[in-house]
Amino acid sequence: MNIIDEANRTAHQRMLDAQPALVDVAPAGEAIAGLEDRMLLHAGPPIEWPDMCGPMQAAILGAIRYEGWTHTDAGAVTALENGEITLQPNHNLGAVGPMTGITSPSMPVFVVENRAFGNRAYCTINEGIGKVMRFGANDDTVIQRLEWLQNGLAPVLREAVQSAGGVELRPIVARALTMGDEMHQRNVAATSLLLRTLAPHIADASSIGNNVSDILKFLADNDQFFLNLAMAIGKATMDPTRDIPNSTVVTAMSRNGTEFGIRVSATGDRWFTAPSLMPQGLYFPGFTADDANPDMGDSTIIETMGLGGFAMGAAPAVVGFVGAGTFQDALAYTREMGEITVGRNPNLALPTLDFQGAPCGIDVRKVVESSITPVINTGIAHREPGVGQVGAGIVRAPMACFTQALEAIDQLLSETANA
Amino acid sequence: MNIIDEANRTAHQRMLDAQPALVDVAPAGEAIAGLEDRMLLHAGPPIEWPDMCGPMQAAILGAIRYEGWTHTDAGAVTALENGEITLQPNHNLGAVGPMTGITSPSMPVFVVENRAFGNRAYCTINEGIGKVMRFGANDDTVIQRLEWLQNGLAPVLREAVQSAGGVELRPIVARALTMGDEMHQRNVAATSLLLRTLAPHIADASSIGNNVSDILKFLADNDQFFLNLAMAIGKATMDPTRDIPNSTVVTAMSRNGTEFGIRVSATGDRWFTAPSLMPQGLYFPGFTADDANPDMGDSTIIETMGLGGFAMGAAPAVVGFVGAGTFQDALAYTREMGEITVGRNPNLALPTLDFQGAPCGIDVRKVVESSITPVINTGIAHREPGVGQVGAGIVRAPMACFTQALEAIDQLLSETANA
Repeated sequence: MNIIDEANRTAHQRMLDAQPALVDVAPAGEAIAGLEDRMLLHAGPPIEWPDMCGPMQAAILGAIRYEGWTHTDAGAVTALENGEITLQPNHNLGAVGPMTGITSPSMPVFVVENRAFGNRAYCTINEGIGKVMRFGANDDTVIQRLEWLQNGLAPVLREAVQSAGGVELRPIVARALTMGDEMHQRNVAATSLLLRTLAPHIADASSIGNNVSDILKFLADNDQFFLNLAMAIGKATMDPTRDIPNSTVVTAMSRNGTEFGIRVSATGDRWFTAPSLMPQGLYFPGFTADDANPDMGDSTIIETMGLGGFAMGAAPAVVGFVGAGTFQDALAYTREMGEITVGRNPNLALPTLDFQGAPCGIDVRKVVESSITPVINTGIAHREPGVGQVGAGIVRAPMACFTQALEAIDQLLSETANA
Repeated sequence: MNIIDEANRTAHQRMLDAQPALVDVAPAGEAIAGLEDRMLLHAGPPIEWPDMCGPMQAAILGAIRYEGWTHTDAGAVTALENGEITLQPNHNLGAVGPMTGITSPSMPVFVVENRAFGNRAYCTINEGIGKVMRFGANDDTVIQRLEWLQNGLAPVLREAVQSAGGVELRPIVARALTMGDEMHQRNVAATSLLLRTLAPHIADASSIGNNVSDILKFLADNDQFFLNLAMAIGKATMDPTRDIPNSTVVTAMSRNGTEFGIRVSATGDRWFTAPSLMPQGLYFPGFTADDANPDMGDSTIIETMGLGGFAMGAAPAVVGFVGAGTFQDALAYTREMGEITVGRNPNLALPTLDFQGAPCGIDVRKVVESSITPVINTGIAHREPGVGQVGAGIVRAPMACFTQALEAIDQLLSETANA
């Protein structure tokens, strides 16, 4: 076994050892170290305000209005341009966010701790469907919902999570995989299991007031409620695999709506980027591929940990939703992803593959050698701000990210050898 | 198409047209016409008190104690022997019950209406696991739980169901089939989906008092809570297929712990019986096949409607639980059951078979011609009263039931031809 294989085994083992638990629901500004006042976090690799796509810019203006940092959108743009309001990728501060992925200090976030390693990851609470900030909507209804998440839902969830002594998430994910979820475009089982776990604690929360049925209804009405938790699980699982010398395992994949970026263990926080590809998928009635924004969001952390498109074989019902063909095609995607990973994850077993584990630990070398790029199940945003989701589909990570990463690692290795 | 095929098409279409909805939760004595004072209903075809297996006798003594009809078990036995307390099969009065299946007048029952035909079916509320009456346990803890179901849970469920305007059940079952349930030995998805639907209404129920978290916890802690509803759905779906002249479609399969019985459409309420077979399965630690009671309960109404063992291909995770081999074996069971049914049910689509419908409408002729008997996923009861469930497995319906039924139909047809 060469030094790269050995390093990758270490990364793989850390993924298997992960023990993610929901330990708190807290304001982002309180939970996330480094998230300062007048700072917003966004999805994907770093990107400047003028380069952002329409939905991401609109979400940022909405978040500034929600925080009350400026009186007008024009004022907000000025503050962004002159650096009074700063922008950072979620990934820089241990966070992840779906689609535009905007995280602002007042927004409540799930706090997921990887109990095996002690690291924490953060993700906002899923807003539901329709007009939502993650797709760039920013009108009053969007802001009002964010305020309810902050003041109505989050305090109750916080109390419920604490009264439950935290919620172990690996058992929920493992079980949801036996119930047709792949944790990216389908989270109905995990959402339901989480609701079952938390509902008694929610009902008992002292902060609940007359809010019980509103809160239970909000959780019940959103099949993708668990998505944001799945993302935090992915981040909490992958972060301990960062910075392993010589490891070619991908530690993050993410998109800012313009570029797709990956990080690789041996090369630390460096992003290898290429233009985001357009998802191939099914569009909701009235929309076509012309309406689609390029692929966007931190949610590809789910594929990075071996779920989503990698676990499509576990989720035959998602196949039709993302336009992926038949159940046999879904199984084929999962088998194909097994070609580019270090191993399997027996803790995330897929019943339709006779409980074989999900493919786990994307190896940059295998991607380049096999010409097989990671497959991603994704929602498709309208390219105009505020319209929302227009479909769902499948997209591949661009090969250029992986070839660049491999070159960088080759260079690192030769530098080490020559040192 | 001959007259039998035509009649069977009618039965099949009625199964497809079924629209079961949970419309009420009410005391059995109030909901079930004909359930009189000092009458108990039991699982399976008719059976006399002395012929009943141990668990069923014990459950009956427990139910009499719960109703307070006699002061002692000895008094109860006397009352049973001299006919002061009478016994009837659930199926005689539109009801079904799991395992021993005892239904007494004070027990709350789910009331499921088939909105397409107006008929109603009834089933008690699942007690959970451990020491429970359906497995013949009858000590104070069992009686106390039944009292809580009656006084604590049922009034709240009743109010919640009514405030929800009833709960359409076909969408829940259809969705649960995409989430790995087969509705007999696995109901975790349907249970979770039902909880999500009812939880906000439960929280709002005026009768809830301080009972919210107790009730949500009871529902959350029992993955098989939905089983009894699935049974009532089966009964409500199958009853409109009864009494169709010339139809060889099976309208009920049921076991009383001693005998297995089937009813067939053309022959109305007549039972064709044979000794119950022993399930082949996996035993919980500490138990073996020597501990097993012969197959028991009305829950085979689920297979009669085309789910349970018939839909095993939809539920790869149940395969290990019932000891059925691999996922491919599960698919094979579903395909095999397609050999003995009139058709498929597109309203109950199986994602792992690319959304082919569940096999639907068991044709007695096809069973006899093919020598393929219906496959049933079943819980296994201890043969001694009160021990409870000792395993789960697979059992086949005895062929003798089907050959007798076919002979009876042949005779009916020749009588009609000669008339």
